[in-house]
Amino acid sequence: MIQSLPSAAVLGARAFAALQGLNRFTDEPGKLTRLYLSPAHRQAAEWTKGAMEVAGLTAFVDAAGSVQGRREGPAPGGPCVMIGSHIDTVKDGGRFDGNLGVVAGILAAQALRDAGIVLPFALEVVAFGDEENVRFPTHLSTSCALAGDYDPAWLEARDAEGTRLADALVAFGGDPTGIAALARKPGSVKAYIELHIEQGPVLEVENEPVGIVTAINAQRRARVRVTGEAGHAGTVPMNLRRDAMTASAEMALALESIAAAHEQAVGTVGVFQVNPGATNVVPGAVEFTMDFRCPSNETLAAMDAAIRSRFGEIAARRGVALDITLYTNARAVPMDADLQDSLGAGVARAGGNHAARRLPSGAAHDAMAMAALCPAAMLFVRNEKGISHSPLENMTEADAGIAIRALLEAILELARREG
Amino acid sequence: MIQSLPSAAVLGARAFAALQGLNRFTDEPGKLTRLYLSPAHRQAAEWTKGAMEVAGLTAFVDAAGSVQGRREGPAPGGPCVMIGSHIDTVKDGGRFDGNLGVVAGILAAQALRDAGIVLPFALEVVAFGDEENVRFPTHLSTSCALAGDYDPAWLEARDAEGTRLADALVAFGGDPTGIAALARKPGSVKAYIELHIEQGPVLEVENEPVGIVTAINAQRRARVRVTGEAGHAGTVPMNLRRDAMTASAEMALALESIAAAHEQAVGTVGVFQVNPGATNVVPGAVEFTMDFRCPSNETLAAMDAAIRSRFGEIAARRGVALDITLYTNARAVPMDADLQDSLGAGVARAGGNHAARRLPSGAAHDAMAMAALCPAAMLFVRNEKGISHSPLENMTEADAGIAIRALLEAILELARREG
Repeated sequence: MIQSLPSAAVLGARAFAALQGLNRFTDEPGKLTRLYLSPAHRQAAEWTKGAMEVAGLTAFVDAAGSVQGRREGPAPGGPCVMIGSHIDTVKDGGRFDGNLGVVAGILAAQALRDAGIVLPFALEVVAFGDEENVRFPTHLSTSCALAGDYDPAWLEARDAEGTRLADALVAFGGDPTGIAALARKPGSVKAYIELHIEQGPVLEVENEPVGIVTAINAQRRARVRVTGEAGHAGTVPMNLRRDAMTASAEMALALESIAAAHEQAVGTVGVFQVNPGATNVVPGAVEFTMDFRCPSNETLAAMDAAIRSRFGEIAARRGVALDITLYTNARAVPMDADLQDSLGAGVARAGGNHAARRLPSGAAHDAMAMAALCPAAMLFVRNEKGISHSPLENMTEADAGIAIRALLEAILELARREG
Repeated sequence: MIQSLPSAAVLGARAFAALQGLNRFTDEPGKLTRLYLSPAHRQAAEWTKGAMEVAGLTAFVDAAGSVQGRREGPAPGGPCVMIGSHIDTVKDGGRFDGNLGVVAGILAAQALRDAGIVLPFALEVVAFGDEENVRFPTHLSTSCALAGDYDPAWLEARDAEGTRLADALVAFGGDPTGIAALARKPGSVKAYIELHIEQGPVLEVENEPVGIVTAINAQRRARVRVTGEAGHAGTVPMNLRRDAMTASAEMALALESIAAAHEQAVGTVGVFQVNPGATNVVPGAVEFTMDFRCPSNETLAAMDAAIRSRFGEIAARRGVALDITLYTNARAVPMDADLQDSLGAGVARAGGNHAARRLPSGAAHDAMAMAALCPAAMLFVRNEKGISHSPLENMTEADAGIAIRALLEAILELARREG
């Protein structure tokens, strides 16, 4: 039975060919930009539905804009194993982020059908649509819909042009009034597995084609406002300055060193706006964002305390006012341990009994929303140079093939454990 | 003769009343914004011409847009003492910067005329128009015209709307072809004196109403580009980052500490632009400006060397590329020693034999351009809180009065030295 499954090399070639098809759909010619509920998203959804149907799944675009495909198991309407990821992208994004996980699910379903394998559960593939948090100030709304965690207030969210999400959804062909009914019943999804390109360089540095995610990191984000006093760059002596720029620079370095001092933690200042922002003016105010993450909720809280203490000390010494507004405080989401082991068995079979590298995910994923509903796990694929959210994002066809073969083997492992 | 001159208190009151008149003219209602060659500049020039005429000067708006007023001395067309400053402002600027120096010159001329004082030289008052370097990428062009240093290429400069300076000058009523003839002959200006609000807090901290400028500081400005590698804020481990933001933050702090370590030096990062500038992206590139100044050319060169060495070390250690483009390199402009002494005598008589504080100017002034033509000196007036280029810029009427009285006394001192 297993002998009749396609090799990793064949699966990799099929995946790259499929991605070429799917990635024709973009909101910006010459780039890959596919925002939630955009015309390109609709086209990509139609392509995905067609691909699912060719792979033997019954497919439809759901009320929230996700594409759902299903092959029934022994008992119609019974519990399923779900393979999913997303087909929305950032602006000018990479080819693999999200799209590869959807294509992998479709290719796995196709291979299992072609090999005549009967699974003891239904198999579903889902292409979510709102993972990248670009167009609307929502995040993971389409996977939250399946998990039963959709907040109706999200329908009132507006994009940069002022369009309401609910109106965009209707224009797309979705149905705001049908979202509540998308929620799956507890127990109806036995497992959710997501294959995704790693968005960092860890697997490349460690020379591993794939890795199994242990947890999606806890994360906090804050807006920091530092207020000093503007002054003439030529005439205010150094000892009389209250320079918001250099105070904030010292804080950015403090965040960096605190992150470096904590296990598996990261800390980033990504936005940094200087006021008034003129060559000959000592900056009177700076607003910057900070983002820090690590796999442990306790460690993250300790980092937060260290940051506030160091920032406060810097502000007091420099005579500037400090305001920290936390706007994201997400707890770590552990991936299901049994499901990690099943993925591990799949990786071992696909890659020659090699124990898979386990690593946390520093980024959020639809698996995070699905984990509220069912056991969830993720398989990362090595990223060339670790570049994410960029047209330079890349992976080898060989690695894509190994990952999809491992996904197939993991589905068979789940079937084996069932029986 | 000297008894009949108005008191400092009277001069201060007259100056504040005159500023109320002059500062009605603005390009932005509710703010004081008067850019070179704007409609408000033209209106202010007309007001200034009228005020000069009432003060007994023969006045006209010159080909470059400056207002010139003159009272002849004993020999018509003979050498003059010139009192000047500028009537252009920054956007949303203060009431005193430039305007007070022009008003002071007019009030001094008026007081001398009213007192029937005959000077052994002509007296001129000039209101320059292009000091603030806001509308066009030119600086001190109107005083350079008098000094014979006007670069005809400036006429081709364009403002943010694409308007050529030459076209704006014609619309204003000026004459690009007449600028060359504005150049004064060497020896025709015996002295240029500029009264100006201090643009920093030194006089306030030292409790002095006025101060005499020793030199206009040497200054260098550079654009610094730091190029690292962009990455996902959640997924690139700290030890694998080449973060342009934190590298640049360390450079800003290095500049600050180098400036603090050098006598009378300042250093400022005023513009700081982060790319791509998203919360969840490790910045791949930063561009910032640095501006550093001090009274000594040698010290400034030593600072430059120290900055390049420290920045280079930071870039090498962090694996980022560094590009420093120097775009301003202005040598220090010493003020005339004899003229400083004449101002000192004036300050002593105006303020009760108190020796005046001497200090360098960290900002550029029209006196810098005029120093290429003739002996030049400046008198600074105490600034409340040292705030410059802001509607919060302030000084007391009493200090303005002391300064104008000192200016009057300095003119009389020059007359005395002549005779």
